Amino acid sequence: MSEKLSIIVFSGTVDKLYPVAILASGAAALGMDVEIFLTFWGLNAFRKDMVKGNMRISKDFEEMAPTVMQVFKEKNVPHWFDMLKQAKEMGNVKVYACAMTYDLFGMKKEDLVDIIDGVVGVGEFLEKAKESQITLFI
Amino acid sequence: MSEKLSIIVFSGTVDKLYPVAILASGAAALGMDVEIFLTFWGLNAFRKDMVKGNMRISKDFEEMAPTVMQVFKEKNVPHWFDMLKQAKEMGNVKVYACAMTYDLFGMKKEDLVDIIDGVVGVGEFLEKAKESQITLFI
Amino acid sequence: MSEKLSIIVFSGTVDKLYPVAILASGAAALGMDVEIFLTFWGLNAFRKDMVKGNMRISKDFEEMAPTVMQVFKEKNVPHWFDMLKQAKEMGNVKVYACAMTYDLFGMKKEDLVDIIDGVVGVGEFLEKAKESQITLFI
Repeated sequence: MSEKLSIIVFSGTVDKLYPVAILASGAAALGMDVEIFLTFWGLNAFRKDMVKGNMRISKDFEEMAPTVMQVFKEKNVPHWFDMLKQAKEMGNVKVYACAMTYDLFGMKKEDLVDIIDGVVGVGEFLEKAKESQITLFI
Repeated sequence: MSEKLSIIVFSGTVDKLYPVAILASGAAALGMDVEIFLTFWGLNAFRKDMVKGNMRISKDFEEMAPTVMQVFKEKNVPHWFDMLKQAKEMGNVKVYACAMTYDLFGMKKEDLVDIIDGVVGVGEFLEKAKESQITLFI
Repeated sequence: MSEKLSIIVFSGTVDKLYPVAILASGAAALGMDVEIFLTFWGLNAFRKDMVKGNMRISKDFEEMAPTVMQVFKEKNVPHWFDMLKQAKEMGNVKVYACAMTYDLFGMKKEDLVDIIDGVVGVGEFLEKAKESQITLFI
Protein backbone atom coordinates (compact mmCIF):
# COMPACT_ATOMS: atom_id res chain seq x y z
CA MET A 1 0.00 0.00 0.00
CA SER A 2 1.23 3.50 -0.79
CA GLU A 3 2.30 5.86 1.92
CA LYS A 4 -0.02 8.77 2.50
CA LEU A 5 -0.13 12.42 3.57
CA SER A 6 -3.47 13.69 4.88
CA ILE A 7 -4.21 17.37 5.37
CA ILE A 8 -7.19 19.00 7.05
CA VAL A 9 -7.39 22.45 5.49
CA PHE A 10 -9.25 24.61 7.99
CA SER A 11 -7.72 27.98 7.19
CA GLY A 12 -8.46 29.96 4.06
CA THR A 13 -5.67 32.51 4.05
CA VAL A 14 -3.41 32.53 1.01
CA ASP A 15 -0.26 32.18 3.10
CA LYS A 16 -1.57 28.86 4.49
CA LEU A 17 -2.94 27.63 1.16
CA TYR A 18 0.58 27.75 -0.27
CA PRO A 19 1.97 25.18 2.19
CA VAL A 20 -1.06 22.97 1.42
CA ALA A 21 -0.26 23.06 -2.31
CA ILE A 22 3.51 22.74 -1.78
CA LEU A 23 3.22 19.80 0.64
CA ALA A 24 0.75 18.08 -1.72
CA SER A 25 3.13 18.57 -4.66
CA GLY A 26 6.12 17.38 -2.68
CA ALA A 27 4.32 14.27 -1.46
CA ALA A 28 2.94 13.49 -4.93
CA ALA A 29 6.45 13.81 -6.37
CA LEU A 30 7.60 11.19 -3.84
CA GLY A 31 4.81 8.87 -4.98
CA MET A 32 2.82 9.30 -1.78
CA ASP A 33 -0.96 9.41 -1.86
CA VAL A 34 -2.41 12.71 -0.70
CA GLU A 35 -5.83 13.30 0.82
CA ILE A 36 -7.02 16.81 1.49
CA PHE A 37 -10.11 17.51 3.57
CA LEU A 38 -11.43 21.05 3.11
CA THR A 39 -13.39 22.41 6.04
CA PHE A 40 -14.76 25.72 7.26
CA TRP A 41 -12.71 28.71 5.95
CA GLY A 42 -10.65 26.21 3.99
CA LEU A 43 -13.63 24.99 1.99
CA ASN A 44 -14.83 28.55 1.49
CA ALA A 45 -11.53 29.34 -0.25
CA PHE A 46 -12.35 26.68 -2.88
CA ARG A 47 -15.55 28.40 -4.05
CA LYS A 48 -15.30 29.32 -7.72
CA ASP A 49 -15.89 32.99 -6.89
CA MET A 50 -13.17 32.99 -4.20
CA VAL A 51 -10.35 30.82 -5.39
CA LYS A 52 -8.44 33.29 -7.54
CA GLY A 53 -9.61 36.54 -5.99
CA ASN A 54 -8.80 35.56 -2.41
CA MET A 55 -6.02 37.89 -1.25
CA ARG A 56 -6.52 37.21 2.44
CA ILE A 57 -3.23 36.89 4.36
CA SER A 58 -2.99 35.96 8.03
CA LYS A 59 -3.63 39.10 10.11
CA ASP A 60 -0.62 38.17 12.21
CA PHE A 61 1.66 39.16 9.34
CA GLU A 62 -0.59 41.55 7.46
CA GLU A 63 1.85 44.43 7.22
CA MET A 64 4.32 42.14 5.46
CA ALA A 65 1.79 41.09 2.82
CA PRO A 66 2.62 43.72 0.17
CA THR A 67 6.35 42.83 0.30
CA VAL A 68 5.59 39.12 0.05
CA MET A 69 3.14 39.61 -2.83
CA GLN A 70 5.78 41.63 -4.66
CA VAL A 71 8.39 38.88 -4.21
CA PHE A 72 5.94 36.22 -5.44
CA LYS A 73 5.23 38.33 -8.51
CA GLU A 74 8.89 39.05 -9.29
CA LYS A 75 9.88 35.40 -8.90
CA ASN A 76 6.90 34.20 -10.96
CA VAL A 77 5.63 31.90 -8.21
CA PRO A 78 2.59 30.08 -9.59
CA HIS A 79 -0.78 30.56 -7.88
CA TRP A 80 -1.32 28.02 -5.08
CA PHE A 81 -4.41 26.72 -6.87
CA ASP A 82 -2.48 26.02 -10.06
CA MET A 83 0.19 24.23 -7.98
CA LEU A 84 -2.48 22.05 -6.44
CA LYS A 85 -4.06 21.26 -9.81
CA GLN A 86 -0.64 20.28 -11.11
CA ALA A 87 -0.10 18.04 -8.07
CA LYS A 88 -3.36 16.29 -8.94
CA GLU A 89 -2.18 15.73 -12.51
CA MET A 90 1.15 14.41 -11.28
CA GLY A 91 -0.01 12.00 -8.62
CA ASN A 92 -2.75 10.49 -6.54
CA VAL A 93 -4.09 13.62 -4.84
CA LYS A 94 -7.69 13.58 -3.66
CA VAL A 95 -9.52 16.72 -2.51
CA TYR A 96 -12.66 16.33 -0.39
CA ALA A 97 -15.20 18.83 0.88
CA CYS A 98 -16.27 18.46 4.53
CA ALA A 99 -19.91 17.36 4.50
CA MET A 100 -20.84 19.37 7.59
CA THR A 101 -19.50 22.66 6.22
CA TYR A 102 -21.00 21.92 2.81
CA ASP A 103 -24.46 21.34 4.26
CA LEU A 104 -24.28 24.11 6.86
CA PHE A 105 -23.57 26.77 4.27
CA GLY A 106 -25.94 25.28 1.71
CA MET A 107 -23.20 24.86 -0.87
CA LYS A 108 -23.85 23.31 -4.26
CA LYS A 109 -21.45 21.29 -6.39
CA GLU A 110 -21.39 24.07 -8.99
CA ASP A 111 -20.30 26.64 -6.37
CA LEU A 112 -17.01 24.82 -5.90
CA VAL A 113 -13.97 24.48 -8.15
CA ASP A 114 -13.91 21.30 -10.21
CA ILE A 115 -10.88 19.68 -8.57
CA ILE A 116 -13.03 18.48 -5.69
CA ASP A 117 -13.42 14.69 -5.73
CA GLY A 118 -16.38 14.41 -3.41
CA VAL A 119 -18.12 15.41 -0.21
CA VAL A 120 -17.18 13.29 2.81
CA GLY A 121 -18.00 13.28 6.51
CA VAL A 122 -15.48 13.64 9.30
CA GLY A 123 -15.73 9.93 10.16
CA GLU A 124 -14.89 8.86 6.64
CA PHE A 125 -11.95 11.25 6.58
CA LEU A 126 -10.62 9.95 9.91
CA GLU A 127 -10.89 6.37 8.62
CA LYS A 128 -8.60 7.35 5.75
CA ALA A 129 -6.31 9.60 7.78
CA LYS A 130 -5.50 7.01 10.42
CA GLU A 131 -3.74 4.95 7.75
CA SER A 132 -1.55 7.96 6.86
CA GLN A 133 2.10 8.38 7.79
CA ILE A 134 1.51 12.12 8.26
CA THR A 135 -1.69 14.01 9.08
CA LEU A 136 -1.64 17.79 9.41
CA PHE A 137 -4.16 20.42 10.47
CA ILE A 138 -3.47 23.64 8.58
CA MET B 1 -5.09 -1.74 21.69
CA SER B 2 -7.52 0.87 20.42
CA GLU B 3 -6.56 3.34 17.75
CA LYS B 4 -6.16 6.90 18.95
CA LEU B 5 -6.54 10.52 17.91
CA SER B 6 -4.51 13.06 19.90
CA ILE B 7 -5.12 16.79 19.66
CA ILE B 8 -3.05 19.63 21.08
CA VAL B 9 -5.52 22.50 21.48
CA PHE B 10 -3.43 25.66 21.45
CA SER B 11 -5.94 28.08 19.99
CA GLY B 12 -8.95 29.38 21.87
CA THR B 13 -11.06 30.85 19.08
CA VAL B 14 -14.54 29.41 18.66
CA ASP B 15 -13.99 28.59 15.00
CA LYS B 16 -11.09 26.29 15.97
CA LEU B 17 -12.85 24.79 19.00
CA TYR B 18 -15.56 23.45 16.69
CA PRO B 19 -13.16 21.25 14.72
CA VAL B 20 -11.75 19.99 18.03
CA ALA B 21 -15.21 18.93 19.19
CA ILE B 22 -16.23 17.56 15.79
CA LEU B 23 -13.04 15.54 15.31
CA ALA B 24 -13.34 14.18 18.86
CA SER B 25 -16.98 13.18 18.23
CA GLY B 26 -16.16 11.61 14.89
CA ALA B 27 -13.26 9.62 16.33
CA ALA B 28 -15.30 8.51 19.36
CA ALA B 29 -18.07 7.34 17.03
CA LEU B 30 -15.50 5.17 15.23
CA GLY B 31 -14.44 3.65 18.55
CA MET B 32 -11.09 5.46 18.59
CA ASP B 33 -9.63 6.73 21.83
CA VAL B 34 -9.25 10.50 21.92
CA GLU B 35 -6.76 12.48 23.99
CA ILE B 36 -6.96 16.25 24.09
CA PHE B 37 -4.19 18.36 25.57
CA LEU B 38 -5.30 21.92 26.33
CA THR B 39 -2.53 24.49 26.31
CA PHE B 40 -2.13 28.26 26.33
CA TRP B 41 -5.14 30.03 24.74
CA GLY B 42 -6.76 26.62 24.38
CA LEU B 43 -6.73 25.98 28.12
CA ASN B 44 -7.93 29.51 28.80
CA ALA B 45 -11.05 28.76 26.72
CA PHE B 46 -11.94 25.97 29.18
CA ARG B 47 -12.19 28.28 32.18
CA LYS B 48 -15.68 28.18 33.67
CA ASP B 49 -16.07 31.93 33.14
CA MET B 50 -14.96 31.69 29.49
CA VAL B 51 -16.36 28.51 28.02
CA LYS B 52 -19.85 29.68 27.08
CA GLY B 53 -19.25 33.41 26.77
CA ASN B 54 -16.24 33.10 24.46
CA MET B 55 -17.26 34.64 21.12
CA ARG B 56 -13.74 35.04 19.82
CA ILE B 57 -13.38 34.16 16.13
CA SER B 58 -10.09 34.11 14.24
CA LYS B 59 -9.22 37.69 13.23
CA ASP B 60 -8.40 36.37 9.76
CA PHE B 61 -12.11 35.87 9.10
CA GLU B 62 -13.58 38.34 11.57
CA GLU B 63 -15.84 40.14 9.14
CA MET B 64 -17.53 36.84 8.27
CA ALA B 65 -18.28 36.06 11.93
CA PRO B 66 -21.78 37.57 12.11
CA THR B 67 -22.92 35.61 9.04
CA VAL B 68 -21.48 32.38 10.39
CA MET B 69 -23.02 32.93 13.83
CA GLN B 70 -26.38 33.51 12.18
CA VAL B 71 -26.12 30.26 10.18
CA PHE B 72 -25.16 28.31 13.31
CA LYS B 73 -28.18 29.74 15.12
CA GLU B 74 -30.62 29.06 12.26
CA LYS B 75 -29.40 25.50 11.82
CA ASN B 76 -29.43 24.85 15.60
CA VAL B 77 -25.78 23.78 15.67
CA PRO B 78 -25.00 22.74 19.26
CA HIS B 79 -22.35 24.66 21.19
CA TRP B 80 -18.85 23.17 20.68
CA PHE B 81 -18.59 22.53 24.40
CA ASP B 82 -21.80 20.51 24.48
CA MET B 83 -20.56 18.52 21.45
CA LEU B 84 -17.37 17.74 23.31
CA LYS B 85 -19.22 16.72 26.48
CA GLN B 86 -21.38 14.42 24.37
CA ALA B 87 -18.29 12.92 22.75
CA LYS B 88 -17.01 12.14 26.27
CA GLU B 89 -20.28 10.40 27.12
CA MET B 90 -20.18 8.42 23.90
CA GLY B 91 -16.60 7.19 23.96
CA ASN B 92 -13.17 7.19 25.52
CA VAL B 93 -12.32 10.89 25.28
CA LYS B 94 -9.82 12.29 27.76
CA VAL B 95 -9.22 16.01 28.21
CA TYR B 96 -6.00 17.15 29.91
CA ALA B 97 -4.78 20.55 31.02
CA CYS B 98 -1.16 21.42 30.17
CA ALA B 99 0.73 21.56 33.47
CA MET B 100 2.97 24.42 32.39
CA THR B 101 0.08 26.69 31.37
CA TYR B 102 -1.85 25.69 34.49
CA ASP B 103 1.01 26.61 36.80
CA LEU B 104 2.11 29.68 34.90
CA PHE B 105 -1.31 31.30 35.14
CA GLY B 106 -1.91 30.07 38.69
CA MET B 107 -5.07 28.21 37.70
CA LYS B 108 -7.04 26.20 40.20
CA LYS B 109 -9.11 23.08 39.57
CA GLU B 110 -12.31 24.99 40.34
CA ASP B 111 -11.50 27.63 37.68
CA LEU B 112 -11.83 25.01 34.95
CA VAL B 113 -14.87 23.20 33.57
CA ASP B 114 -15.45 19.77 35.04
CA ILE B 115 -14.78 17.72 31.92
CA ILE B 116 -11.03 17.98 32.51
CA ASP B 117 -9.54 14.62 33.48
CA GLY B 118 -6.26 15.84 34.88
CA VAL B 119 -3.23 18.08 34.60
CA VAL B 120 -0.34 16.56 32.64
CA GLY B 121 3.09 17.68 31.51
CA VAL B 122 4.23 17.87 27.90
CA GLY B 123 6.39 14.75 28.30
CA GLU B 124 3.48 12.67 29.52
CA PHE B 125 1.34 13.91 26.65
CA LEU B 126 4.03 13.10 24.07
CA GLU B 127 4.37 9.58 25.54
CA LYS B 128 0.66 9.08 24.86
CA ALA B 129 0.57 10.90 21.53
CA LYS B 130 3.38 8.90 19.95
CA GLU B 131 1.15 5.81 20.12
CA SER B 132 -1.59 7.67 18.21
CA GLN B 133 -2.50 7.11 14.58
CA ILE B 134 -3.21 10.85 14.23
CA THR B 135 -1.86 13.79 16.23
CA LEU B 136 -2.97 17.32 15.39
CA PHE B 137 -1.99 20.79 16.58
CA ILE B 138 -5.01 23.07 16.41
CA MET C 1 15.74 3.38 15.43
CA SER C 2 14.75 6.28 17.70
CA GLU C 3 11.24 7.60 17.80
CA LYS C 4 10.80 11.01 16.27
CA LEU C 5 8.78 14.22 16.52
CA SER C 6 8.66 16.38 13.37
CA ILE C 7 7.38 19.94 13.40
CA ILE C 8 6.69 22.23 10.47
CA VAL C 9 7.01 25.73 11.89
CA PHE C 10 4.97 27.97 9.60
CA SER C 11 3.94 30.65 12.07
CA GLY C 12 6.29 33.24 13.49
CA THR C 13 4.32 34.60 16.43
CA VAL C 14 5.95 34.29 19.83
CA ASP C 15 2.96 32.49 21.34
CA LYS C 16 3.38 29.68 18.76
CA LEU C 17 7.18 29.59 18.99
CA TYR C 18 6.89 28.67 22.68
CA PRO C 19 5.03 25.41 21.97
CA VAL C 20 7.65 24.59 19.32
CA ALA C 21 10.45 25.00 21.86
CA ILE C 22 8.54 23.26 24.67
CA LEU C 23 7.53 20.28 22.52
CA ALA C 24 11.10 19.98 21.22
CA SER C 25 12.46 20.06 24.80
CA GLY C 26 9.91 17.55 26.03
CA ALA C 27 10.60 15.16 23.16
CA ALA C 28 14.39 15.50 23.56
CA ALA C 29 14.03 14.77 27.30
CA LEU C 30 12.23 11.53 26.37
CA GLY C 31 15.10 10.58 24.05
CA MET C 32 13.07 11.19 20.90
CA ASP C 33 14.71 12.65 17.82
CA VAL C 34 13.27 16.01 16.81
CA GLU C 35 13.23 17.53 13.35
CA ILE C 36 12.04 21.08 12.86
CA PHE C 37 11.34 22.50 9.41
CA LEU C 38 11.17 26.30 9.39
CA THR C 39 9.06 27.76 6.61
CA PHE C 40 7.56 31.10 5.64
CA TRP C 41 6.85 33.30 8.72
CA GLY C 42 8.46 30.61 10.83
CA LEU C 43 11.80 30.89 9.04
CA ASN C 44 11.60 34.67 9.13
CA ALA C 45 11.44 34.50 12.95
CA PHE C 46 14.87 32.79 12.94
CA ARG C 47 16.65 35.70 11.28
CA LYS C 48 19.39 37.07 13.52
CA ASP C 49 17.76 40.50 13.49
CA MET C 50 14.34 39.09 14.41
CA VAL C 51 14.85 36.26 16.85
CA LYS C 52 15.10 38.21 20.10
CA GLY C 53 13.23 41.37 19.13
CA ASN C 54 10.16 39.59 17.79
CA MET C 55 7.26 40.54 20.09
CA ARG C 56 4.55 39.47 17.65
CA ILE C 57 1.65 37.68 19.34
CA SER C 58 -1.29 36.14 17.47
CA LYS C 59 -3.79 38.90 16.65
CA ASP C 60 -6.54 36.60 17.90
CA PHE C 61 -5.35 37.17 21.46
CA GLU C 62 -3.56 40.48 21.09
CA GLU C 63 -5.30 42.29 23.94
CA MET C 64 -4.12 39.58 26.33
CA ALA C 65 -0.48 39.97 25.27
CA PRO C 66 0.58 42.52 27.93
CA THR C 67 -0.80 40.33 30.76
CA VAL C 68 0.90 37.24 29.38
CA MET C 69 4.21 39.04 28.88
CA GLN C 70 4.03 40.26 32.48
CA VAL C 71 3.42 36.71 33.78
CA PHE C 72 6.33 35.36 31.71
CA LYS C 73 8.58 38.06 33.16
CA GLU C 74 7.47 37.53 36.77
CA LYS C 75 7.89 33.77 36.55
CA ASN C 76 11.27 34.09 34.79
CA VAL C 77 10.19 31.97 31.82
CA PRO C 78 13.22 31.63 29.53
CA HIS C 79 13.04 32.99 25.99
CA TRP C 80 11.68 30.40 23.54
CA PHE C 81 14.91 30.61 21.55
CA ASP C 82 17.05 29.79 24.58
CA MET C 83 14.72 26.86 25.36
CA LEU C 84 15.21 25.56 21.84
CA LYS C 85 19.00 25.97 22.01
CA GLN C 86 18.99 24.04 25.28
CA ALA C 87 16.87 21.30 23.69
CA LYS C 88 19.55 21.02 20.99
CA GLU C 89 22.27 20.67 23.63
CA MET C 90 20.24 18.04 25.47
CA GLY C 91 19.22 15.79 22.61
CA ASN C 92 19.09 15.05 18.91
CA VAL C 93 17.21 18.14 17.69
CA LYS C 94 17.73 19.22 14.09
CA VAL C 95 16.51 22.55 12.75
CA TYR C 96 16.16 22.98 8.99
CA ALA C 97 15.35 25.98 6.82
CA CYS C 98 12.82 25.43 4.02
CA ALA C 99 14.72 25.73 0.74
CA MET C 100 11.85 27.40 -1.10
CA THR C 101 11.40 30.17 1.49
CA TYR C 102 15.16 30.60 1.75
CA ASP C 103 15.57 31.06 -1.99
CA LEU C 104 12.41 33.11 -2.47
CA PHE C 105 13.47 35.74 0.03
CA GLY C 106 17.12 35.64 -1.02
CA MET C 107 18.29 34.69 2.46
CA LYS C 108 21.92 34.06 3.24
CA LYS C 109 23.38 31.69 5.83
CA GLU C 110 24.68 34.65 7.84
CA ASP C 111 21.18 36.18 8.04
CA LEU C 112 19.98 33.24 10.13
CA VAL C 113 20.74 32.20 13.70
CA ASP C 114 23.47 29.60 14.02
CA ILE C 115 21.31 26.76 15.34
CA ILE C 116 20.14 25.95 11.82
CA ASP C 117 21.54 22.63 10.62
CA GLY C 118 20.90 23.05 6.93
CA VAL C 119 18.60 24.07 4.11
CA VAL C 120 16.29 21.29 2.88
CA GLY C 121 13.51 20.97 0.36
CA VAL C 122 9.96 19.93 1.14
CA GLY C 123 10.51 16.47 -0.37
CA GLU C 124 13.49 15.77 1.83
CA PHE C 125 11.56 16.92 4.88
CA LEU C 126 8.58 14.69 4.02
CA GLU C 127 10.92 11.71 3.58
CA LYS C 128 12.09 12.26 7.16
CA ALA C 129 8.70 13.16 8.60
CA LYS C 130 6.94 10.06 7.32
CA GLU C 131 9.12 7.97 9.64
CA SER C 132 7.99 10.10 12.63
CA GLN C 133 5.55 9.01 15.30
CA ILE C 134 4.20 12.58 15.46
CA THR C 135 4.23 15.34 12.83
CA LEU C 136 2.73 18.73 13.62
CA PHE C 137 2.06 21.88 11.61
CA ILE C 138 2.37 24.90 13.90
